[in-house]
Amino acid sequence: MYKAKLLDFDTKSEIVVIHPEVEDPRDSQTNLSQVRYGKKRLLVQVVRSPLVSPQEIGLSPKVADHLGVQGGEQINIVARSKPAAVPLIMKKYDHQTWSYNDLRSIVDDMYAGNVSDLEMAAFTLAMQYEDLTIDETEYLTRAFTLHGEQIEFNEPVYDKHSIGGIPGNKVSLIIVPIIAAAGLLIPKTSSRAITSPSGTADTMEVLCDVDFTAEEIMQIAPKTRGMIVWGGQLNLAPVDSEIIDRVERPLSLDPQSVIIASILSKKLSTGVERLVLDMPTGYETKIENRQDAKNLSALFVEIGRRVGIQIDAALTYADQPVGHAIGPALEAREAIETMMGHGPRSVLEKSCELAGILLEMAGMARRGNGAQMADEIVQSGKALTKFYEIIEAQGAEQHYKPEDIAIGQYTESVRASSDGYISYVSNKQIKQVASALGCPSDKQSGLILRRKRGEFVKKGDIIMDLYSSRESALDNALKIANLQNPWRLEGMVLERISSTPHELSG
Amino acid sequence: MYKAKLLDFDTKSEIVVIHPEVEDPRDSQTNLSQVRYGKKRLLVQVVRSPLVSPQEIGLSPKVADHLGVQGGEQINIVARSKPAAVPLIMKKYDHQTWSYNDLRSIVDDMYAGNVSDLEMAAFTLAMQYEDLTIDETEYLTRAFTLHGEQIEFNEPVYDKHSIGGIPGNKVSLIIVPIIAAAGLLIPKTSSRAITSPSGTADTMEVLCDVDFTAEEIMQIAPKTRGMIVWGGQLNLAPVDSEIIDRVERPLSLDPQSVIIASILSKKLSTGVERLVLDMPTGYETKIENRQDAKNLSALFVEIGRRVGIQIDAALTYADQPVGHAIGPALEAREAIETMMGHGPRSVLEKSCELAGILLEMAGMARRGNGAQMADEIVQSGKALTKFYEIIEAQGAEQHYKPEDIAIGQYTESVRASSDGYISYVSNKQIKQVASALGCPSDKQSGLILRRKRGEFVKKGDIIMDLYSSRESALDNALKIANLQNPWRLEGMVLERISSTPHELSG
Repeated sequence: MYKAKLLDFDTKSEIVVIHPEVEDPRDSQTNLSQVRYGKKRLLVQVVRSPLVSPQEIGLSPKVADHLGVQGGEQINIVARSKPAAVPLIMKKYDHQTWSYNDLRSIVDDMYAGNVSDLEMAAFTLAMQYEDLTIDETEYLTRAFTLHGEQIEFNEPVYDKHSIGGIPGNKVSLIIVPIIAAAGLLIPKTSSRAITSPSGTADTMEVLCDVDFTAEEIMQIAPKTRGMIVWGGQLNLAPVDSEIIDRVERPLSLDPQSVIIASILSKKLSTGVERLVLDMPTGYETKIENRQDAKNLSALFVEIGRRVGIQIDAALTYADQPVGHAIGPALEAREAIETMMGHGPRSVLEKSCELAGILLEMAGMARRGNGAQMADEIVQSGKALTKFYEIIEAQGAEQHYKPEDIAIGQYTESVRASSDGYISYVSNKQIKQVASALGCPSDKQSGLILRRKRGEFVKKGDIIMDLYSSRESALDNALKIANLQNPWRLEGMVLERISSTPHELSG
Repeated sequence: MYKAKLLDFDTKSEIVVIHPEVEDPRDSQTNLSQVRYGKKRLLVQVVRSPLVSPQEIGLSPKVADHLGVQGGEQINIVARSKPAAVPLIMKKYDHQTWSYNDLRSIVDDMYAGNVSDLEMAAFTLAMQYEDLTIDETEYLTRAFTLHGEQIEFNEPVYDKHSIGGIPGNKVSLIIVPIIAAAGLLIPKTSSRAITSPSGTADTMEVLCDVDFTAEEIMQIAPKTRGMIVWGGQLNLAPVDSEIIDRVERPLSLDPQSVIIASILSKKLSTGVERLVLDMPTGYETKIENRQDAKNLSALFVEIGRRVGIQIDAALTYADQPVGHAIGPALEAREAIETMMGHGPRSVLEKSCELAGILLEMAGMARRGNGAQMADEIVQSGKALTKFYEIIEAQGAEQHYKPEDIAIGQYTESVRASSDGYISYVSNKQIKQVASALGCPSDKQSGLILRRKRGEFVKKGDIIMDLYSSRESALDNALKIANLQNPWRLEGMVLERISSTPHELSG
């Protein structure tokens, strides 16, 4: 046992320091050691250095945080012995199926801090290589919900979830107030953007707080009927979050089985019973092919049925960004504009279609009439009134008009270099421009796509306006936009296949 | 640019320290940074701490070693940007095949220090999940040989290699002198044990040095005709070694495609042209099934043909350890005893059979007569004379007789608890007992298996003798041996299937 000493080591790594004279308790195969304090366990990397005395163990802040120690506590350190999870994980490499007990043991060991990053990668990469069976996916969903926070209400909980991948998708800010205005309970947890320009939580945070505890959500939501909060700090299905942080993000992975288990376990942990699932389907999104989207939707619906969540999935058009605004502040503006009745038609329509499905699932509208009912809630001003009520309950300083929301002071326009029809807008390149502008961390950065697919533009017409809080970011983004041209301009004849060979024109 | 400062951090991790006021150059997706010095690059974990000034960068010894700096040099640190290798690695998860250029780029980026442990795991785990095609395996073999040391001779090089997994396999110590005594050149590089009781290099090291540079090998081997050296420090096919250290060992993996590419790339790097491959096939070894051994052998032969190595593979009996002695010093004793003419018959036979194949491949013996020629070389004493010549050239202090070799002073016998035939000896449990005794690091530890499969023993007969340099290790091993009984004793009737139900006896 060693006395805990906090180190002023600002690092993302799990590092502990012991004195050079102390024997290094390290497993020879994995080079890993495990620190233990009470029931808490964590795999760590050991540094031997005279920074600490032979009686002490130095802990980086991340390690101290995880163990919940402040310094002075008695900490044990041992060579990591292989947990039960490891041979179970490796079964997949012998092409065996996982039972519920297998997956529960694996997830339990991950929760207990017994599984290394490499082992967690072996778990995740097997599912990236080959999808789980429906049974395994159900088991994984259930196993993920065994740990972490549980949010419960005494009435049915509705929810809307997008599997993401499409820029400008601010529709949750409109759907939640529509559903809440109709009297249904929709306490939506949402994510922050990682690689996309803005997550729903990022956009909402422009207007009000999004960090709430489970207790606060259980208090506020039944009154306002709706909330939009950041799910990240709620400790929902924490093993799933670990897998995302430690494996999926570093490797840019997104295995289908984990997508399903990840989303549905978090829904189960927040008491969701009815869910509309937005499946953006289009070029340069997560799902490019309509048949793939249908198959994935069917899987979601079936796993949902098994675990007690009624799901309607909606394949939505995603060949270009939703609406015009991209970036947290600009999207917040556009969402409010839409509820005021002067937003882009596509944003209003997508919001009402998805909200309508929930209204139909609730039995409040007949099948096929939900979207119209949602539209009426918007047109009557009830959605906007509800939205202001919600952001007020979440600590908003005012009932923002679009123009009240600050956007980047540095701005430039990007113009058409020739006449033509916009035959294509690139989701991928729009994201790159937005990222160069500072999205999602610079909330005032982003772009307005003034002209979209199918429109005719003349040389010199403005196609997009760029905004940033930093001049250098704007310059950089402008360079990228002009170099890559995130759209294509063509005449009505896209290509000419001729028997006479032509010279290629520059 | 920061001034390098060496830290007294004894650690296996790649850690650098920068001052808290210095911006943390870290890729947000992978949390990785890269240090650069000249053409050297290394992915590192960053700690921000006032241990260094804002002008300095603190390097752990492993980092300093890799960069080749002593302190005071100007080091750059940048956010790691994703190398070309990563999307190429991930192609496999879309079930695409790797081209030679793909594998070359991947291996190049690994060599350049651009690939993280997780990414290397993604590469290796894909091959664990599904074997590469023959083409891909050939390309991987070639790609591995692009970096690292090249050993060349002006004459054909012979070699013997075992894919391992069987305890007591000391036959290389006998085969090399036989082949060298016949005049052929056999500068054998061998490995140290990781999980097994003793690697060939561990056993040889009991008698003489095994650490030689490429230049020394090229000088000594043509004179003695044979050497047995440790390949680990030679920097042969270094990317393969990285994959083993960073992924395969921590995850206990051994994907077939990498086994082949690993072995053959190291052979190519040492100029081997003709190779006999020992494939121990038996229960509780790497290859349990004879058809699997045949398939793997055929693959080795074909990849060898493509890269210019003539290979004969020999499936060898491996249902129990080879000979009686297990552990470095005890195996060295048994190898010398065998060359003196009073070793176990199985050790002599296996050595002569494998050596005979090489003599036949060289055209020195007609097909079917090689083993007899090898046996004559042993019986005439030429093998032993040559062995002494080799160990002398490798710095041996004397021409060891078996009894000159020190073995563990703490010793105990394990005895039969009943009468019976030994129907089974467990390779796996023998390895566990040997490991508990101190193998491979305690060279004087190990065991002598006095009775083997098929033999009849009476209650109280000695089955094995245990040796260790440490009393506590001996006690522990004895406990394991008595608890697990690494053998099974049965009557001639192994089981009785009867129509009358019997009570189970305790």
